Amino acid sequence: MASVEDLQKKIKELEQALEEEKQKNRQGAVRQKISEMSSEVVDSNPYSRLMALKRMGIVDNYEKIRDYTVAVVGVGGVGSVTAEMLTRCGIGKLLLFDYDKVELANMNRLFYQPHQAGLSKVEAAERTLKEINPDVIFETYNYNITTMDNFNHFMKRITEGGLTEGKPVDLVLSCVDNFEARMTINTACNEVGQTWIESGVSENAVSGHIQFVIPGETACFACAPPLVVATKTDEKTLKREGVCAASLPTTMAVVAGFLVQNTLKYLLEFGDVTHYLGYNALQDFFPTMSMKPNENCDDTYCCKQQKLYKEREAKKPKVVKEEPKEEEVIHEDNPFEIELVSETSVEESQASEGQVPELTEGLRVAYSVPAPEQGDLGNNVVETDSTSLDELMKQMKSL
Amino acid sequence: MASVEDLQKKIKELEQALEEEKQKNRQGAVRQKISEMSSEVVDSNPYSRLMALKRMGIVDNYEKIRDYTVAVVGVGGVGSVTAEMLTRCGIGKLLLFDYDKVELANMNRLFYQPHQAGLSKVEAAERTLKEINPDVIFETYNYNITTMDNFNHFMKRITEGGLTEGKPVDLVLSCVDNFEARMTINTACNEVGQTWIESGVSENAVSGHIQFVIPGETACFACAPPLVVATKTDEKTLKREGVCAASLPTTMAVVAGFLVQNTLKYLLEFGDVTHYLGYNALQDFFPTMSMKPNENCDDTYCCKQQKLYKEREAKKPKVVKEEPKEEEVIHEDNPFEIELVSETSVEESQASEGQVPELTEGLRVAYSVPAPEQGDLGNNVVETDSTSLDELMKQMKSL
Repeated sequence: MASVEDLQKKIKELEQALEEEKQKNRQGAVRQKISEMSSEVVDSNPYSRLMALKRMGIVDNYEKIRDYTVAVVGVGGVGSVTAEMLTRCGIGKLLLFDYDKVELANMNRLFYQPHQAGLSKVEAAERTLKEINPDVIFETYNYNITTMDNFNHFMKRITEGGLTEGKPVDLVLSCVDNFEARMTINTACNEVGQTWIESGVSENAVSGHIQFVIPGETACFACAPPLVVATKTDEKTLKREGVCAASLPTTMAVVAGFLVQNTLKYLLEFGDVTHYLGYNALQDFFPTMSMKPNENCDDTYCCKQQKLYKEREAKKPKVVKEEPKEEEVIHEDNPFEIELVSETSVEESQASEGQVPELTEGLRVAYSVPAPEQGDLGNNVVETDSTSLDELMKQMKSL
Repeated sequence: MASVEDLQKKIKELEQALEEEKQKNRQGAVRQKISEMSSEVVDSNPYSRLMALKRMGIVDNYEKIRDYTVAVVGVGGVGSVTAEMLTRCGIGKLLLFDYDKVELANMNRLFYQPHQAGLSKVEAAERTLKEINPDVIFETYNYNITTMDNFNHFMKRITEGGLTEGKPVDLVLSCVDNFEARMTINTACNEVGQTWIESGVSENAVSGHIQFVIPGETACFACAPPLVVATKTDEKTLKREGVCAASLPTTMAVVAGFLVQNTLKYLLEFGDVTHYLGYNALQDFFPTMSMKPNENCDDTYCCKQQKLYKEREAKKPKVVKEEPKEEEVIHEDNPFEIELVSETSVEESQASEGQVPELTEGLRVAYSVPAPEQGDLGNNVVETDSTSLDELMKQMKSL
């Protein structure tokens, strides 16, 4: 039997080892909550470089970011970086939705680390983001929004999950990787009139886009569906066995950067909020455009929102020096069909999205450049003239 | 005195607590080294989504990335994300140079976490990056490259620090935040004929750029210096007390994304390597251009490299169907002065860089759009025609 001295020596050693391990683990908790955003220029202020945007004349009231709630749907390659950017910017509240687990196969994108493999993405994301900025309030849901029960809950949270419980979120960001989930977000946002931004990266990893949607005012996701839905092909039949999409941390970070930059411009009211911004990495080509909603959109809530928008617009006091406004013909002689998409020829759209991978017959990469449709997006949104845009695109390509 | 039973009970408790703490710390070491990049589509393969670029027809030989060495100078807001992207892409070797410490004031950019505050940036970066991808070889230097001794060591490492010791690195990426360090990198790369890419983000955080430099073939950083050097003003006198530059995680991630995308395109030979790519976040405007070197460049090594380039070009076998080449006049009637920069008017350049912060008299934001100068950058580099480019820029702005 061991002597008391031996045991006490052993206890001392164990206590010391325990203290060392605790010390290593303690690192994660350095940053304390900060009750108010300060502009003070000291090394210990995590907000000094953001508050400097006020002095630089870019943003009038940066600290207002704490009043906003953003829902991020999909926290994969684009969504995780999106959530991290918003967290570091000091957003008030973040709602995260995903049902995937972290895998080593995700390590070619930013954010997740190998030791998180096996955790749910929302749990892994929340842990990391809370360490980065404990001032942000997080709400995470580890479920698939496309099933009926979850969809109803998702709707409830985007309409009631704002900073003040019962108020809607300020913006929904779609960072999902499939058509069905995009359509689900579109349906939800159309029904409740929620502004959102869609994002996507092509299967060949070298192009992407963001699209800003104000229900009733700009084209929704169902207004200009990609071919996959127009031909009624089931998305699942398109996935060939043992084949995975390519992805790059570069393209995904650029798309997340565009998405959050547009979010900041929209919420904090600076610069021009862009309606559609594409990124073609092979040629460094960045198409922008605006799209009016389709009057014959399949989504009845989109049509209702269009009506509501027109009523709101009609009630607005008329501007004294009103310019004679040209009537625009929208889908009148051309009832909305797949033809709309082909206003940009397949060749052109493929050129702008870079090389296209071999796909099942009749298909092209889902998220290529939609056809430009003129739209009035309000003062703060970039407007483009389609005739000159087409011309410009051709010129840019020929350079 | 405690009984032997009590002591043994205490030991058991301590052992259990120690095991728990060790468990928490152990998480960081999950990912094992992988001897060969595989295309296998399994959740445990961190390279499956990158190797898929081959099947998608984007990159012929993705695994060749393991043969390359890249030096990243400056691992702050842009450099740290740049290093992370290259690490996740599976680059062979990374050399990191910086002399700063991580501060909480850096937490508005991606990558560093609060618990790393106080560590040197290169040490913090190496720890995180090794966990993310243990297949990458790291070499870090915690020093300022602009001092004489360090400059000599820096030169030695970029000429001898390749994957095979004694061979040069394949590319140098400049992610520094000041003019002096940029000029130092420029001097070093001109002297040894090292291809590099410069990057920068404006002080108001809403614009940035990358510029690809092949000494002798494209304009070097000294060929078109910003005003700060042209007027011989000491950079340090420009920093006003208590004033810090603004920064955003969005802009920095976009610039890092462009930088690493261009790096991948250059190293793995796909797409068009872009010579100059700007990012104006307020208007989502992306100027591109090409610049020939200045025959009267202040850097004598630049002039020597130009001579060497011309000699190499002259030795190349003539193409059978050679087009009559127009002689371009470069800085002949207009000996190189600050006037070159003002080919883009101050108003235009300010417009393209967004709102400009109040600066000391006579100064403008350092890294605005340089004047476009036509250049032949070889087959793989985007060429632009300056007349139509100017025209395009005006048209884009008017949209």
